Order: sequence, then C-alpha cells, then structure tokens
Amino acid sequence: MEMTKEEIEQLSKKQPILRVAPQMRDLNNNGHIFGGWVLSQMDIAGGIVAAQVAQGSTATVAIEAMEFITPILPRDLISVYVNVAKIGRTSITLCVDVIASRNRGDEQVAVTRGTFHFVALDENARPRPIPEESRAIYLDGK
Amino acid sequence: MEMTKEEIEQLSKKQPILRVAPQMRDLNNNGHIFGGWVLSQMDIAGGIVAAQVAQGSTATVAIEAMEFITPILPRDLISVYVNVAKIGRTSITLCVDVIASRNRGDEQVAVTRGTFHFVALDENARPRPIPEESRAIYLDGK
Amino acid sequence: MEMTKEEIEQLSKKQPILRVAPQMRDLNNNGHIFGGWVLSQMDIAGGIVAAQVAQGSTATVAIEAMEFITPILPRDLISVYVNVAKIGRTSITLCVDVIASRNRGDEQVAVTRGTFHFVALDENARPRPIPEESRAIYLDGK
Amino acid sequence: MEMTKEEIEQLSKKQPILRVAPQMRDLNNNGHIFGGWVLSQMDIAGGIVAAQVAQGSTATVAIEAMEFITPILPRDLISVYVNVAKIGRTSITLCVDVIASRNRGDEQVAVTRGTFHFVALDENARPRPIPEESRAIYLDGK
Amino acid sequence: MEMTKEEIEQLSKKQPILRVAPQMRDLNNNGHIFGGWVLSQMDIAGGIVAAQVAQGSTATVAIEAMEFITPILPRDLISVYVNVAKIGRTSITLCVDVIASRNRGDEQVAVTRGTFHFVALDENARPRPIPEESRAIYLDGK
Amino acid sequence: MEMTKEEIEQLSKKQPILRVAPQMRDLNNNGHIFGGWVLSQMDIAGGIVAAQVAQGSTATVAIEAMEFITPILPRDLISVYVNVAKIGRTSITLCVDVIASRNRGDEQVAVTRGTFHFVALDENARPRPIPEESRAIYLDGK
Repeated sequence: MEMTKEEIEQLSKKQPILRVAPQMRDLNNNGHIFGGWVLSQMDIAGGIVAAQVAQGSTATVAIEAMEFITPILPRDLISVYVNVAKIGRTSITLCVDVIASRNRGDEQVAVTRGTFHFVALDENARPRPIPEESRAIYLDGK
Repeated sequence: MEMTKEEIEQLSKKQPILRVAPQMRDLNNNGHIFGGWVLSQMDIAGGIVAAQVAQGSTATVAIEAMEFITPILPRDLISVYVNVAKIGRTSITLCVDVIASRNRGDEQVAVTRGTFHFVALDENARPRPIPEESRAIYLDGK
Repeated sequence: MEMTKEEIEQLSKKQPILRVAPQMRDLNNNGHIFGGWVLSQMDIAGGIVAAQVAQGSTATVAIEAMEFITPILPRDLISVYVNVAKIGRTSITLCVDVIASRNRGDEQVAVTRGTFHFVALDENARPRPIPEESRAIYLDGK
Repeated sequence: MEMTKEEIEQLSKKQPILRVAPQMRDLNNNGHIFGGWVLSQMDIAGGIVAAQVAQGSTATVAIEAMEFITPILPRDLISVYVNVAKIGRTSITLCVDVIASRNRGDEQVAVTRGTFHFVALDENARPRPIPEESRAIYLDGK
Repeated sequence: MEMTKEEIEQLSKKQPILRVAPQMRDLNNNGHIFGGWVLSQMDIAGGIVAAQVAQGSTATVAIEAMEFITPILPRDLISVYVNVAKIGRTSITLCVDVIASRNRGDEQVAVTRGTFHFVALDENARPRPIPEESRAIYLDGK
Repeated sequence: MEMTKEEIEQLSKKQPILRVAPQMRDLNNNGHIFGGWVLSQMDIAGGIVAAQVAQGSTATVAIEAMEFITPILPRDLISVYVNVAKIGRTSITLCVDVIASRNRGDEQVAVTRGTFHFVALDENARPRPIPEESRAIYLDGK
C-alpha cells in the first residue's frame, strides 16, 4: 500500500493541513527529527480536520497502522495531508499522510502515514453525534 | 483487554522506564495534556528498551493499536512501562503502557497503551540482526 | 494597501510556504499569540523561499514595512505566503503575508504582512551572485 | 547610520532592557542563532518600554527599518537597548538596538537594530491616549 | 559522604520519583546536559514529595549543600530519588539524589545530590501546619 | 542577612549579568514562575562570570545557601547580579542575587539569592589553576 512516486508528487500539490519546518531542537541523538515530533504534528493536523467534521470539540481515541517510512532530516519541509476515511455516529476515522520536501523542493518523499480515530465530544466530554451534513460534505461519493 | 484496577495498581509498583511530570506548557486548548506529548514519551521509552534489546541503534518503524484511554490532567505524574512482546530477526515488538498517578498518588489510572515496532540498525542505518542472547534475557519463558 | 476580503480568500486557496497551529505555550500575557512567534514563522518561510531562489545558503539582512494587522488567537491556523518581489545581484526581496484561518476555517483574516530582504551567501558567508535562471523562474513577467 | 565602535562601547555600559544568553536550542542550521529568536527579544524589550510609557497595555503594530547587521554566535551575551523616539496621541515609536558581548566580554558588536511602533490599548483593545506626563519623562528635550 | 558503588546500585533499584531522558535541546555549549535542567528536575521531584507530605500546596524555600558530582551526558537516563529527612511544624526537609543510567543501563553513576527545604502553604500562601499523620508515614523510625 | 529596601534599590541600578522576562510557558500550576526557571537563570549568570574569572571553561560544582525569598510573578522583569566572593586555586565562589522589577518598574523585590561554586577546567575537563591576574581584577580590596 506504499504510494508511488507519482502519487506522492500529486499529493504534494494539494492543500496541506499543516506545513512545518522542523528545527534543530527537534533533532534526536541520531541527527534525525525526533519521532515524537512528527506524531505531534499528525495528531494536531488530525485534530483540526476532526473539529471541522464534528463542528466542535473532539479527542483522539486511537491510532492504527502508523508507519515510519523514512527518517525526517533537519532541512526537510513537512506537509501533513488528512483524508476523511469514515464517519460513524460519534467517531471519525482519518488517514494522515506526511510528505517531506527535500533539497529545496526538488524531491518529495513519503515519511509517515497512519490512521487516527477521533470522537466528537459534548460540553461534558461525553461522545456526541456528528452533524448529518458533515457526511455529505466530507464523504461525498465514498 | 482493558486492565483491571488491580492490574493497574500492580503495574504502578514496578520500575517504570520513564516517570515524568507534564508541565503547563504541554497543555492543549481543552486544559488536558496535549496528545503529542504522551506519544513522545512512549516513543522515547520504547526507544530506550529497544536499544537495550538490540544492544545498539534502533528506529521506530510502526505503531499499532494505540489507544488513548483517558485524558492526562496537569498535575498527573506519568509512568511509562514497556514490555518486550516479540523479538524477530531484526525487529522488536514492545507493549507500552502509560499510568497516571493522580491526587498526590492516591489514584492510579491507565491513560494510554500501544504496540510499538522497532528495527535494529547497523552503522549504515540498514536493518541488523538482534544479538541471540537478547532473546534469552528479554523473552525468557514467552 | 490593505487586502480586500476577496484577496484574502483567494490567497488562502494558494499553496502556503508554512501552515502552522500556534500552541498554548506561544501565548503572551494578553491571551494573544506572542508577536515574536509570528515573526519567527515569517522569517522561516522567507528563508525557505530565499534558499530556493538563491539555490543555496542565505541570510536575512533586513525587514521593512512589517505590519501587525490583527492579533492571532489561540485556535487560529496560520498560513504564510511568500511572493518574490525583486531579485538583485546578490539580494532577494520577499513579500510575506500571514493569513489566519479562524472558526474551523469559516473565516480568513490577514494578520501580518512585511517585506523581508535576504542575501545569498557563499561558503565563507560572503555575498554571492544569484543564479541567472532564478530571475526567469521567480520573476517571470514582473 | 551605523554605530561607531565608540558608540557601541558606550551603549553597552548603559542599563539594558534585556540581557539574555541564547541557548543551543536557538541555533539554526548554519550554527548561528535563529533570526526569529532575536526578533522575539526585541519585541519583548520594546513591549516592556511601551508599557512603561503608556502606563498600561500596548500592542506592537509595525516594525520599520529592521537590520540584521551581523550573525549572533552561540556563546554571545545579548543586550537589548530601547530608546523612545516619538510619542503620538496613542502611539509610541521605539528604536531598539541589540549589542552582542563576545569573547567573555572583550568584544562588543552591534547585531541588529530596528524601529518598532506600539499603540496603547484600553480594556477593550481599542487605541487609548498616552498619559501626558509620559512625554515629559521619556522625551524630555527631544 | 559520597555514595559507594553498592549504595548507588541499590538506590537505582528503588522506585524513583522521576525518571527522565534529557534531550538534545537540553545540551549546553560543552556537550553536557545544562545544569539548570537537572536543578529543575530535582525541584519538580522535591515538590511532588513535599505535596504528599503536606497533603496540599507547598513552595521551595531553600536549597542547601547541592553538589554537581559528575556531568550528565546526552544519552543518560536520569532517576531522581527523594528521601524525607525532617518534618518541622510547617516545613519539610528533603534529600534529593540523582542517578544517571549510562551505556544502556550497564553503568549507574551519582550525578547530583542536594537538600531541599519546602514549606506547606494555605490558600492565602501563608505557612500552614503539616498534618500530624505525615510524620508517622514519612519519618517512621527516624 | 536580608537586603534592605535601599540595598535592593541600589543593586537594581547596577549592570546585571542577565535581565530576562519570564514567559507564560515558564509558569507552574500555582501561577508563579517555575522554581527551576530561576535556578537555570542563576546558573547561566554564574557561568558567564565564572568563565570571565577563569578565562576559559568552567563547571558548576555546588550550590550553597540558596534561598527562595518571594515568588516570581508572570509580568516581572528579572535581573541577575553576580558578585565574586572568593577565588581559590582552581575554584570560584560567586554570590548570585535575583531582583524582580514589578509594576512596570515601580517596585523592586529580592526574589532569590544563593552562593554558587564553580571550578576552572582544562581541555580534558580536569581542574585548572585560575590566572593570577583574575584575583587582582575581581577581588581588588577584598
């Protein structure tokens, strides 16, 4: 299920949810960007889209099939893409793909990918039904 | 597969890999500790045990079945426990459990849990066989 | 020279250089995002484009006409857009615009804008001529 | 309008608004201190003086003529000096100079300089007149 | 009053208050972990135990006889141990020991040690008597 | 040995080694600035003076008689003053005083004070004699 070079190229032309430049302070002892840093970016990006779908507060409940494909290097520019895979009664399933732009934009590489599950919350932090219209907007034709 | 209160209590008496107090700066907009923060702690803890098993450099390659059971609160003290589940030729599978100690230690709650996969690396960042003796030490009786 | 609502809307549909979610730790005492945080993002974004134009190392040498139009709020998603305004022999002038996406994407507001000057550097940190082809690529028709 | 060596030496003997030691985590990929770091320090220092002049809350509204004179090195000690240039009805114009003390204090170099504009704010974040006495205190003889 | 190798080994098998992995961003210019970082960890750990003893809010009032025994290296895993030395009417004296686990756990070295004084505070931040039962629990036999 | 109001006022007119504005991210759960933050600033300031006295690399070896006099509040501006108390063959004893400027500079309060011991190091991190002339420069008349 790895993306081809063409799929990566195509994805990198879409609007990202986040596009971030990791800093020196995010390096681990191997000179790569610390794994926790990219997990944080994916969780933030997923949370942004989940809040749009749920039209309100949400929480991350699970991560599934998260792959670290290739290490992130210090000068990479990271784009996070989110695709709404499924909307349940109170839950949202998102596919999160991270692409690194390398060598001043000449090279695009897939760095991580994972499936994140969110749940919509009411004001008492209890699961809350997701508005019907979100299905039409975000899952049209799926 | 949720832990019972007794299992959590028992686990909290074992030696943790990490035990960390989240700070105000780790809060998200809901007043809970930011999800990326606990993922980072689990990845660091997993990396510490993976390096011991591999007797050298490793990298996180995948996360599986990661659950966010209950939110972490600002004054919680977080303990990360790691259990070696499987050792392949070049790969290591770890179960990572996070317990929060709340109310000055009076209450122990399971906050997250996940399965992390690591791979042992040689000096050229290529997969490297895991020393035979690690199986005896870390998987004894499994 | 303020942007109209339509211009902001249009810009927000283009590919940003950076798109970042400020965190609680970036708040100042007034509950707004700290001014230095957005200046940092603009400098990073400018540096990314300057490196592409210069096809190598650069340094920020000046900022001109930097305006703070409206404060950034904690849940805003910030996009940084960069437009190459002028390429001198060794210098690059960039217009940097920052748009905040608010209310889960329903509202786009211009938050800051400024003109940044960079200089291309050789390996001894001395000014270096910018490759001729960059003018064609980045200033076509200007 | 560059400062002479004597002017830098003289300035460095005055009371700074801030005096800060940048840390390893503030380094960029070139081994210099990240540009956004010094912009943040200048904005904080300007905000401290603006609040004194306005006798209350203020916001940065613009930066003008900001120059990066020479890069900041990891072991530099940075002093930020602020001079009140002009006080309008609701606005304050400040000249902000940054001097680096290098080689354990043996060398003083001017690193950045810029003009910052602030506006005094009332409790509804609307522009507010600056107390008359501030003109006498901060602009005496100008 | 230095600990012997056996004492360090023994201590490292006890439950730590904190167990933390310093990160690259915590390095000083000498490639060691910044002194302020370990002081922060000791203060946090002391504060956790002080709050348990006081059964409520406390503040650090003094540090005494704090020794930096050997530098902390980037890959060390740091454990902080706290021993309740004395409980006054409103004050608590704690011995804080920090052990580094080095070379993937093969070596244990004492890195810092200090005596911290805390005071129990009431809701107006005034000194408050420490509950009598804490003496029995934490000082039994001393 | 507490400073009088006059002594604090007088000290605050001297050149500080550091003058820093704590940020929201440095707050602890009580709304005060985190104790570890001010310890870090004192250690950095002490290290700057120790390096000047030693004319080279040094390390903190001990802290003695460190008092937390009054909590630091979010809008305080912190000045760190260092006085060379004693120069041994390879060691330096420094008195470090921290003054907070409060209410836009109208009030000066002593917040912490401590005695820090440093040792001069050679290139192999072994104690190294302190240059004779430093005694004349830094201890003149003591």
